Amino acid sequence: MSARRFDRVLIANRGEIALRIQRACRALGLETVAVHSEADAESRHVRQADIALCIGPAPAARSYLDAESLLLAARATGASAIHPGYGFLSENAAFADAVEDGGLTFIGPTGASIRMMGDKITAKRAMRDAGVPCVPGSDGPLPPEMDAIHAMAAQVGFPVIVKASGGGGGRGMRVVWNADELEQAVTLTAKEAQQAFGNPTLYLERFMQKPRHIEIQVLCDTHGTALWLGARDCSLQRRHQKVLEEAPAPGISPDIIADIGERCAQACRRIGYRGAGTFEFLYEDGIFAFIEMNTRVQVEHPITEATTGIDIVAAQLQIAQGEKLAIRQQDIATLGHAIECRINAEDPRTFMPSPGRITSWDLPGGPGIRIDTHVTAGYTVQPYYDSLIGKVIAHGATRQQAIARLRVALAEMQVQGVSTNIPLHQDILADPHFQQGGVDIHYLERWLAERATP
Amino acid sequence: MSARRFDRVLIANRGEIALRIQRACRALGLETVAVHSEADAESRHVRQADIALCIGPAPAARSYLDAESLLLAARATGASAIHPGYGFLSENAAFADAVEDGGLTFIGPTGASIRMMGDKITAKRAMRDAGVPCVPGSDGPLPPEMDAIHAMAAQVGFPVIVKASGGGGGRGMRVVWNADELEQAVTLTAKEAQQAFGNPTLYLERFMQKPRHIEIQVLCDTHGTALWLGARDCSLQRRHQKVLEEAPAPGISPDIIADIGERCAQACRRIGYRGAGTFEFLYEDGIFAFIEMNTRVQVEHPITEATTGIDIVAAQLQIAQGEKLAIRQQDIATLGHAIECRINAEDPRTFMPSPGRITSWDLPGGPGIRIDTHVTAGYTVQPYYDSLIGKVIAHGATRQQAIARLRVALAEMQVQGVSTNIPLHQDILADPHFQQGGVDIHYLERWLAERATP
Repeated sequence: MSARRFDRVLIANRGEIALRIQRACRALGLETVAVHSEADAESRHVRQADIALCIGPAPAARSYLDAESLLLAARATGASAIHPGYGFLSENAAFADAVEDGGLTFIGPTGASIRMMGDKITAKRAMRDAGVPCVPGSDGPLPPEMDAIHAMAAQVGFPVIVKASGGGGGRGMRVVWNADELEQAVTLTAKEAQQAFGNPTLYLERFMQKPRHIEIQVLCDTHGTALWLGARDCSLQRRHQKVLEEAPAPGISPDIIADIGERCAQACRRIGYRGAGTFEFLYEDGIFAFIEMNTRVQVEHPITEATTGIDIVAAQLQIAQGEKLAIRQQDIATLGHAIECRINAEDPRTFMPSPGRITSWDLPGGPGIRIDTHVTAGYTVQPYYDSLIGKVIAHGATRQQAIARLRVALAEMQVQGVSTNIPLHQDILADPHFQQGGVDIHYLERWLAERATP
Repeated sequence: MSARRFDRVLIANRGEIALRIQRACRALGLETVAVHSEADAESRHVRQADIALCIGPAPAARSYLDAESLLLAARATGASAIHPGYGFLSENAAFADAVEDGGLTFIGPTGASIRMMGDKITAKRAMRDAGVPCVPGSDGPLPPEMDAIHAMAAQVGFPVIVKASGGGGGRGMRVVWNADELEQAVTLTAKEAQQAFGNPTLYLERFMQKPRHIEIQVLCDTHGTALWLGARDCSLQRRHQKVLEEAPAPGISPDIIADIGERCAQACRRIGYRGAGTFEFLYEDGIFAFIEMNTRVQVEHPITEATTGIDIVAAQLQIAQGEKLAIRQQDIATLGHAIECRINAEDPRTFMPSPGRITSWDLPGGPGIRIDTHVTAGYTVQPYYDSLIGKVIAHGATRQQAIARLRVALAEMQVQGVSTNIPLHQDILADPHFQQGGVDIHYLERWLAERATP
């Protein structure tokens, strides 16, 4: 459906991202409707909204995930657009369709785009067809002849991983480091696959041993413009949760990023994507392998805003209004370096959530420091939601300056009443391997395991 | 004297600038010594310093202005450099000399430079000789022949102001709007000057009716590099106190700024200036007239940091260490637009100071927002010092975006316990003439007078 003007936006989210969206709306002169659970009544964005509406009890299923309540709230408050934020219903194609079917504007891509990217196999196929690099592999079942398999593996490049088509959950797969091991691995894995899944069909892919997580931010309007805004490196993860992100990706040349960025933008044009989105890749030895596309704004969007000067959330709103992006690709530069630390209310050793009342909350500031938080002193961290209570983003002329500023900022930040992962961030920022740049997605877990060993 | 390395810096100041300097030191790995009056013991930079030392009672004359105590404190704490901040002893040449004579590093220009710029007549002459434009005028006493005076006035351009050489305090001067009025004005002013000051000698200058305050930030190392970092517009003033500043200066072409900037840098090279400094100008009808040079960091330095990406306070420290500036003039660009609001604890209508305990202090955040403040909840604003309790700086891709972000940020900022001038800033930011850009130095006072009239 075509975009249309709106002047009041319902923000179907909570926490720091609800406040972030509210700020973008207000700077553009749009009125805001905050919806909230009973538990979130005291949150900052609720107090500051033009209209605030409680939509249900604390469990998200009965408030932030309740599509019907959200649509009712939009109608009751006269909001003609809904921004879903991240998480919750932001990648729910049925919700996006319901919003638009109800005559409202969904601030995000079409339900069809969300659906396509939600199915990882469809997404990968579509992206490969559109020229986005995926992990090199056999692109289908292995042939029966060992010679042909050898040729295939040689073309993909070792190490490869042989996987059972019917497998999953880490079973039915085997890493092969060189051609000598290939025949035995294929024989064994096929036998296991037959036993475990009743299907001996195998395929093979390049095995990425210590990849990095690199992602490309895109921004697409409804007039055919698709821009890429540089890369982010989000390799510092624990249990697949990003902990600290940075932009640009250390040590990867701008030419390589430009090539992959242009491919992502081209793919967006091809599928008629609109709004903000992120292409996530594994990256190793110069090889990018598409994992998935996130069809929404991301937690780590501020580091791209810092390095490009582009307000991604404002752009989402403008695109949804049908405006043409005023920026040209050749005018987008990456300036300096930005790093974001996700501040969680959690025990920095056990990673257990640490809900409770925040009695003292002194924020850092100064040059290059951006704070995004819905928390103020006296705020109670609820046990019902994720433990993110704020983000500290540092921008510097160099990566070294960004790190230095971040370390000073975190040292200044004083939080009392709950535990936070600030000490973990400080340790990461002081780590020589991190400081060198380019650690892989398993680095943080290895590092934590080593620290845990006396 | 030659610069030398130091690793511990005494910060001879208080308030937000003391914290600002501390942040720069820490990001560079330098230890900090906070000195404070008895009244400032609870200030944030005192709590966070590596070493904190009380140097006297509240009145500044007995603490922050007490040069001997400061030097003793430096010796007692092993600090080998002193950063004076702004105000207090920052432009006291004798203090700068005493610091260096004591074998310590003064983080600022030489005493000789400070002395030269402290004498406004010497400064103006030196700057004119160095090619910095000053207000056009007779450059000395008027000749006795009226024809010659007419020729002079015509060359300077009307309106001119005829002034008594012996005058001052607004007496013995007369504005002349065109050639027809000139003879009578000269006759009358000479007569008045003879009567009032016993000296009929006159000179004339171009009269700047509604000038703007435009200033150029410079940064000079001890290796002959002098850079200019663009212009700031600080025309919004009340009683010669800046209220809100912005960079770049709206409506003045980059070429004009580049010309004046290059002249300032050239003057710095000529006088062997070192450190950060600011050339202040009146500007009207394309004419720049040098007023004075500030030989220190300024309150409004963050807007230049935002638009250039250069950390001015870090640069001060690096220059004082004898480092060569790593930036080249051709690499310095002005990116987007930045505006700073000085947040004062004062009655927004009467401008009377509003000291007291701050019971609630919720800061804004989000994209493009920088906060510099020494205040935290529970802080008591002292009656002994100026009323600046923080600065809110907004950076945007455009002036319009910077204004919009600032308005959102100020609306979010919640201060309880003292009155602040936030409502005044909100009214200024909403004013159509301000929004258009380029108001003169008298604008705010006219505007306030109009508001005061029912």
